[in-house]
Amino acid sequence: MSGNTFGEIFRITTFGESHGAALGVIIDGVPAGLPIDMEFIASELSRRRPGQSALSTARRESDTPEILSGVLNGIATGTPLAIIIRNTDQRSRDYSNVEHIFRPGHADYTYNAKYGFRDYRGGGRSSGRETAARVAAGAVAKLFLATLGVNITAFASEIGGVKAEKFFPEEIEKNPARSPDPDAAAAMAEAVAASAAAHDSIGGKVGCRITGVPAGWGEPVFDKLDALFAHAMLSLGAVKGIEFGAGFETAAMRGSENNDPMRPGVPPFVTNRAGGILGGISNGDVIEFTLAVKPTPSISALQKTVDDKNTPRDLEITGRHDPCIVPRIVPVVEAMAALVLADCALRQRCARLD
Amino acid sequence: MSGNTFGEIFRITTFGESHGAALGVIIDGVPAGLPIDMEFIASELSRRRPGQSALSTARRESDTPEILSGVLNGIATGTPLAIIIRNTDQRSRDYSNVEHIFRPGHADYTYNAKYGFRDYRGGGRSSGRETAARVAAGAVAKLFLATLGVNITAFASEIGGVKAEKFFPEEIEKNPARSPDPDAAAAMAEAVAASAAAHDSIGGKVGCRITGVPAGWGEPVFDKLDALFAHAMLSLGAVKGIEFGAGFETAAMRGSENNDPMRPGVPPFVTNRAGGILGGISNGDVIEFTLAVKPTPSISALQKTVDDKNTPRDLEITGRHDPCIVPRIVPVVEAMAALVLADCALRQRCARLD
Amino acid sequence: MSGNTFGEIFRITTFGESHGAALGVIIDGVPAGLPIDMEFIASELSRRRPGQSALSTARRESDTPEILSGVLNGIATGTPLAIIIRNTDQRSRDYSNVEHIFRPGHADYTYNAKYGFRDYRGGGRSSGRETAARVAAGAVAKLFLATLGVNITAFASEIGGVKAEKFFPEEIEKNPARSPDPDAAAAMAEAVAASAAAHDSIGGKVGCRITGVPAGWGEPVFDKLDALFAHAMLSLGAVKGIEFGAGFETAAMRGSENNDPMRPGVPPFVTNRAGGILGGISNGDVIEFTLAVKPTPSISALQKTVDDKNTPRDLEITGRHDPCIVPRIVPVVEAMAALVLADCALRQRCARLD
Amino acid sequence: MSGNTFGEIFRITTFGESHGAALGVIIDGVPAGLPIDMEFIASELSRRRPGQSALSTARRESDTPEILSGVLNGIATGTPLAIIIRNTDQRSRDYSNVEHIFRPGHADYTYNAKYGFRDYRGGGRSSGRETAARVAAGAVAKLFLATLGVNITAFASEIGGVKAEKFFPEEIEKNPARSPDPDAAAAMAEAVAASAAAHDSIGGKVGCRITGVPAGWGEPVFDKLDALFAHAMLSLGAVKGIEFGAGFETAAMRGSENNDPMRPGVPPFVTNRAGGILGGISNGDVIEFTLAVKPTPSISALQKTVDDKNTPRDLEITGRHDPCIVPRIVPVVEAMAALVLADCALRQRCARLD
Repeated sequence: MSGNTFGEIFRITTFGESHGAALGVIIDGVPAGLPIDMEFIASELSRRRPGQSALSTARRESDTPEILSGVLNGIATGTPLAIIIRNTDQRSRDYSNVEHIFRPGHADYTYNAKYGFRDYRGGGRSSGRETAARVAAGAVAKLFLATLGVNITAFASEIGGVKAEKFFPEEIEKNPARSPDPDAAAAMAEAVAASAAAHDSIGGKVGCRITGVPAGWGEPVFDKLDALFAHAMLSLGAVKGIEFGAGFETAAMRGSENNDPMRPGVPPFVTNRAGGILGGISNGDVIEFTLAVKPTPSISALQKTVDDKNTPRDLEITGRHDPCIVPRIVPVVEAMAALVLADCALRQRCARLD
Repeated sequence: MSGNTFGEIFRITTFGESHGAALGVIIDGVPAGLPIDMEFIASELSRRRPGQSALSTARRESDTPEILSGVLNGIATGTPLAIIIRNTDQRSRDYSNVEHIFRPGHADYTYNAKYGFRDYRGGGRSSGRETAARVAAGAVAKLFLATLGVNITAFASEIGGVKAEKFFPEEIEKNPARSPDPDAAAAMAEAVAASAAAHDSIGGKVGCRITGVPAGWGEPVFDKLDALFAHAMLSLGAVKGIEFGAGFETAAMRGSENNDPMRPGVPPFVTNRAGGILGGISNGDVIEFTLAVKPTPSISALQKTVDDKNTPRDLEITGRHDPCIVPRIVPVVEAMAALVLADCALRQRCARLD
Repeated sequence: MSGNTFGEIFRITTFGESHGAALGVIIDGVPAGLPIDMEFIASELSRRRPGQSALSTARRESDTPEILSGVLNGIATGTPLAIIIRNTDQRSRDYSNVEHIFRPGHADYTYNAKYGFRDYRGGGRSSGRETAARVAAGAVAKLFLATLGVNITAFASEIGGVKAEKFFPEEIEKNPARSPDPDAAAAMAEAVAASAAAHDSIGGKVGCRITGVPAGWGEPVFDKLDALFAHAMLSLGAVKGIEFGAGFETAAMRGSENNDPMRPGVPPFVTNRAGGILGGISNGDVIEFTLAVKPTPSISALQKTVDDKNTPRDLEITGRHDPCIVPRIVPVVEAMAALVLADCALRQRCARLD
Repeated sequence: MSGNTFGEIFRITTFGESHGAALGVIIDGVPAGLPIDMEFIASELSRRRPGQSALSTARRESDTPEILSGVLNGIATGTPLAIIIRNTDQRSRDYSNVEHIFRPGHADYTYNAKYGFRDYRGGGRSSGRETAARVAAGAVAKLFLATLGVNITAFASEIGGVKAEKFFPEEIEKNPARSPDPDAAAAMAEAVAASAAAHDSIGGKVGCRITGVPAGWGEPVFDKLDALFAHAMLSLGAVKGIEFGAGFETAAMRGSENNDPMRPGVPPFVTNRAGGILGGISNGDVIEFTLAVKPTPSISALQKTVDDKNTPRDLEITGRHDPCIVPRIVPVVEAMAALVLADCALRQRCARLD
């Protein structure tokens, strides 16, 4: 029921606001015996952390994870892992100027409508900072999936209209755009810089490729593997769409063009327009999906809005904001994908009698 | 955990295979006192039923729903409603020719991989026929939502590359394509006919517009309203993508272009690029999303495939199949949207102290 | 959330009223490949069925189960099993005399309070008849558990103050009291007959012994094995208490008297005051618990009550009622125990990395 | 699925080991607008804390709760509340002597069997210390229930065979036994002292009385109110049984003796043998149940046991242990009862159309 829990067997519950004391997560269902590499968790958080390049906000969070339970001598015990991340950069500032104003493109208006009021400090729980807890949990999921040979790679496939035309996975972490195409990376960075210079922001697309998933994961009819990925990804505030394999292009295709022919082999598919999923179950091929990422709603250009008295107001948002969220969302997408797959891996353990 | 249950408070669990004895659903959480209009449920099933036009398969299912529980004198009692739909058109045919062959674009290979074997009779549970149970449940959800003023309208926004350019909701049920643009409807039908003549099938897009949802529905951070819709829609076998509001177009937009300016009013938005959802919570505006629907994988043209001995095989699929699934998926999309919203409406009853 | 669903992986959802069209259950999570023995399911239902002896109601229900899905050629396919049982003995009688009167000891008053009205026909969903669906599902769980060597035996340990002093499991089904002590069985039957002759009913206790459960089942801290059994058993309307192993006697014991000493062996326990569960996890020993079963509230003696206008009324309940529910609840207790254990068996598959 | 989550709408997830860094809980579903009284939470934790009298262990835990999220200016915001309690009294001791030995009556053997190894430091997650997180969450549930007029009172009804014969609720917190009968309190304390002097421990019973619950709470058929209480209470390690109202005494009663006659009024019951619950739904009367609490398994007397090589070992448990857990479990029982009721109160908000 709770909107702050995700997964069935490998299951996380998160908490925390942008400007509260701490963010955190309880991870239940971590198989006993899994080695927990704290440095890996910290490194994943570091990938999400702001302030790493000109493309992201200058807010500095050390984002140091602390494990409170569930691990003995570096090994998961089978009891829940709790990880917290203190908010160390809570500038003691005056929020009175935004307390009553609704920022366009933000959740200010809707949180107010839902709860009767809202935590106005930096967006509260609707802040992207909430995803730090997901990344910490996703790192644990990745540790589990690594024992099964699963590898997840997300990347900027498009920023500000600039498309990555090549896919060199080893290049992704080498450029601030997280582009797998080093040639496109520079143009992407320029697009971001241009929008920032215009007191504006810019959107893009994130791709995700997953290898090593065996055929058989996913739980029809409602918890199909693609349905779970879609749930996971659309739970990220900036994501406005998702497509699997050939995705929206299939709308204009014929069946003979879209069906992936089969031939002897494992996996037995000649092409992969399905994106590695058939009937909601992994088919053993590479899983591929793409996300639409909207431009950051926080812009310093003047905007028309209203306050909570329904009075028109002019707004110029100050402070530290990402001119483009695409590069920073990449590790979050990987984390959510890992959480989906860790859960499906365990669920599949129960599918058959033997 | 179960992959055959959807929803938290207003919750359905479905069962049934294409060629088994019956399909059905248990609907738990229907508020006591809701009048249950059996004719409406039957009429919704009739909208999904095959054999209604040249655009859909000739298979004839009477699809008569039978309510087994939960209703007294036409009123929901608060106990679970069970509805079953007998499979009356199970042709006693010989399946031995497909029992061991994997149909491209179908779930044959993946069900085998997951469970070790599969129900080869007409696709078993992976058949689109499974959605009849969803439509029956969705009809009950619609009855509840109608008491709240919520109205859901899905439609064919594109078929075979032909786009609906106008939106006349009253036209949708008047043409076999379920196009809101009567001018486009004829071209859509021609596109379907052309693909059928070529022993092929064709894809398209389905749009959905929902009015009357108040601001405040949806449960951050994981059960955001858009995340729940995405989960629901991607659980339909033919759907390969979803986008909300401006969707994939936002990838090339700037924040100043994408943010919906606000002005006094209810809802207070000048435009609706957000698609009626902000921060995962309904904002009171029209909810809008679009789905990519792949071409039906069952085509009678010759296809290359393999059998369960990994031997190459040629396949020509015979029998009754939809040359385009778009028109028939329209009521299913509405049903799934209704299930999401009925659940969110009840969850919102618990959000505040008063 | 739904109150009509039980279990996490091996999960059932039930429906049905005493005098509706049918009762039934969807069983999700049955491992693919499990042979489904329909005769066994029917025989378990037959054990619960009324009209078998002078100790139970004369109501005649054929209780024939029909499987609607999830089985192919006698083997579970991994998709949900749906089983329905038609209500064939719905006497078309006039309920107007009880429609507005609350029967003492029954749920009439509370259903009214909860839902605003109630299904007054034979108790509706609060009728013990609802448990037929549990027995059908429990039979499937037993089939799964049998593959693991688990055996569940419930029995009347006390009726009307008469205690079973011996435990001969093969005697249980041979006497109408379901007493494991053939000597006590006759006295138990006399106690029931005496209460019936007095237009009254009588209570008792049900014991349950489970062998073959390996050490390790149960999910601390909230889904401890005993907590799940307690949940399952107290969900039966007639059950007013449960105790495990030495149970309430431990309240007056010292630790040195209650702790089970350990010695080399499997299981390594000298005694079994723990009832086979330590820290909420099975310890490999026999699992033992006892239930308090209240006397049937439906008695034909005159009772003081009120109607839904809060007016005092005299009530004499007519019709067919069990003078003692203990014998008939025995197979229901076994069914619920089986459902708990089938779920725990699957959950344990996910506990460890290897 | 997760065994560390309890509740559906008002839902908690806990973590933490006896000798780890911290214990804690995430409480999801707290209605927005609820004032959060931190001093009350601290005072409830203080009631559970050890070292308060000669009847409990001398271990000193400050048990200071820290709220990390979900509260703004003292008011719940609708987002999850996280509370952590640092373990400040982790004596850095040598556990090598117990690392491989199984303590009788403890979960050592079963945790090993379940997970392949265990956290041997002070019992790890199977320690009673885990319940501190429950008490913190239960305090928040009590704050919510107080707005509805619900009052929960648990107490020692029996210790070491000494029964409380009177019920003066204001006396409970005034004596170290937490007896509602001040005369019995002294004899209870003597029983505890006698068992401690004998290097032993002693068991007892805890009663619970709940007033102010309106008729209508509880969710048939599986989540009956008594089933949920039973689940909650048996999830406490020391509890071996539960009975509602007349409980096990009903086993020897006739229906005419057990049924509570009804007369005009609210609630309309002359007696309360049902314990305030009929058909799994609260009936508006006082809810009453009693728990069997086993003697603390940790005793310093010599015990026979085995180690993880299945070798016989003699064991004398040293360190700080409660000679009787009954007084300290009283606030934990109240907390679990509060969690059950807070959840049911919210679920009932969804029961009816209007």
